[in-house]
Amino acid sequence: MNRQELIDQIQQKKSFLCIGLDVDLAKIPTHLLSEEDPIFEFNKQIIDATHQLAVAYKPNTAFYEAYGIKGWLALEKTINYINAKYPEIFTIADAKRGDIGNTSSRYAKAFFEDLNFDAITVAPYMGKDSVEPFLDFENKNTILLTLTSNKGGMDFQTLKTPENELYKSVLKTSLTWKNADNLMFVVGATRPEYFKEIRKIVPNHFLLVPGIGAQGGDLQGVCKFGLTKECGLLINSSRSIIYAGKEKDFALKAQQEALKIQQEMKTILGY
Amino acid sequence: MNRQELIDQIQQKKSFLCIGLDVDLAKIPTHLLSEEDPIFEFNKQIIDATHQLAVAYKPNTAFYEAYGIKGWLALEKTINYINAKYPEIFTIADAKRGDIGNTSSRYAKAFFEDLNFDAITVAPYMGKDSVEPFLDFENKNTILLTLTSNKGGMDFQTLKTPENELYKSVLKTSLTWKNADNLMFVVGATRPEYFKEIRKIVPNHFLLVPGIGAQGGDLQGVCKFGLTKECGLLINSSRSIIYAGKEKDFALKAQQEALKIQQEMKTILGY
Repeated sequence: MNRQELIDQIQQKKSFLCIGLDVDLAKIPTHLLSEEDPIFEFNKQIIDATHQLAVAYKPNTAFYEAYGIKGWLALEKTINYINAKYPEIFTIADAKRGDIGNTSSRYAKAFFEDLNFDAITVAPYMGKDSVEPFLDFENKNTILLTLTSNKGGMDFQTLKTPENELYKSVLKTSLTWKNADNLMFVVGATRPEYFKEIRKIVPNHFLLVPGIGAQGGDLQGVCKFGLTKECGLLINSSRSIIYAGKEKDFALKAQQEALKIQQEMKTILGY
Repeated sequence: MNRQELIDQIQQKKSFLCIGLDVDLAKIPTHLLSEEDPIFEFNKQIIDATHQLAVAYKPNTAFYEAYGIKGWLALEKTINYINAKYPEIFTIADAKRGDIGNTSSRYAKAFFEDLNFDAITVAPYMGKDSVEPFLDFENKNTILLTLTSNKGGMDFQTLKTPENELYKSVLKTSLTWKNADNLMFVVGATRPEYFKEIRKIVPNHFLLVPGIGAQGGDLQGVCKFGLTKECGLLINSSRSIIYAGKEKDFALKAQQEALKIQQEMKTILGY
């Protein structure tokens, strides 16, 4: 998917909501556990109920790997289902990969070609040649961890470096890499005050913002400094939407929760 | 596996060689491609031929993910084979994972419990609460990316921070985390001059050292500054061993290549 298609979708749906599909068998409605593939069945119903309110889905690969082969099958079925039924949706593999060049190429092939995700999250620690193999893919997006929403995000990311702080060095340096237009950046919603600084360095790139909802981030605060004229934000919410209900009407409950956020986003976008 | 068992194995085999099982179907002998599971068949023969010369095997998960479900099955079969037939071997999932707390717990469960690896490589960028869930597991090892062997390793890892450089901040800070005894560190062989500095901060922790062989690192240089009285090093070699031969005798060729390195290690260890 190219950038313009994502922007068009945001304008059409009046939403920049991304739903995190972090499926935990201990948390999904128990009546699904008798299904042949409970994870996929859960995702399918969540997606069917929310696809008009969300522009992106983001399965975190950890939740699928935790179930071994069965988990990977469920991930494959989920991405194939979205791509077949809702091709307008932007799909993100939240995989936080990153390795030496020839190895990163393998990950890029797995997620962009074989699974056909539109985007993948990548860790920056190993630098240029660990990220550029992902950037090679046309109309695919590499979402670089920049300033994360967890407490440990302050351990290294905000360390002072000669010119500024590490996360800013990551932003600035990454803009010099080949095909930097294919970059997006992960910036946690728990740090709205940082968005002003970040927008000075990347005025137009999309930011993927986790931490709204269960992690306590503030949508208004993030938008105040993060929003661009093309929107430029994808706000992720996982647990507060997908686990809004525990009964047979869980998908409806998820829809209601997504609708609340979408309505707020509609107002913010000025519609 | 506990630390003492690893040390005992090193003394017994007079080796601190780790073999990277980075299997690429385009590089393995063509006669294996007609097997039902060529990746596993390749690994099995490599392992059978080299297990007396190596103390550890390290499959890089990217190479398995690139083949989807079939790849994950091959990874499962490989780790199960090693654990069943050669339980003394130290096994490392080179996965470079790292995420927010509850998600890192998922990865830890997948690799330590379900697949029963002895160790996993983890990226430090997200800090304490992204790594501690791995450290929670008793007799399991978390190998933190510190100073990597690729060119991009210099993009951020050696940036000056207030007290020193980023990779040293990673080392020092990680030692304050809970169960820091379960840490090991990835330090590339392409930077032997750094080992002296690193040993000042972590005099006893094991270092996993990739970059010998195809990547051009120098075994003697690394050992000069990195070796401790308990050895404290695992030197990884992947391509130069596993792809030493392309014909039916590929496992023998791999064995000969591993033997060369083991003999050099034996001398270094003073036997």
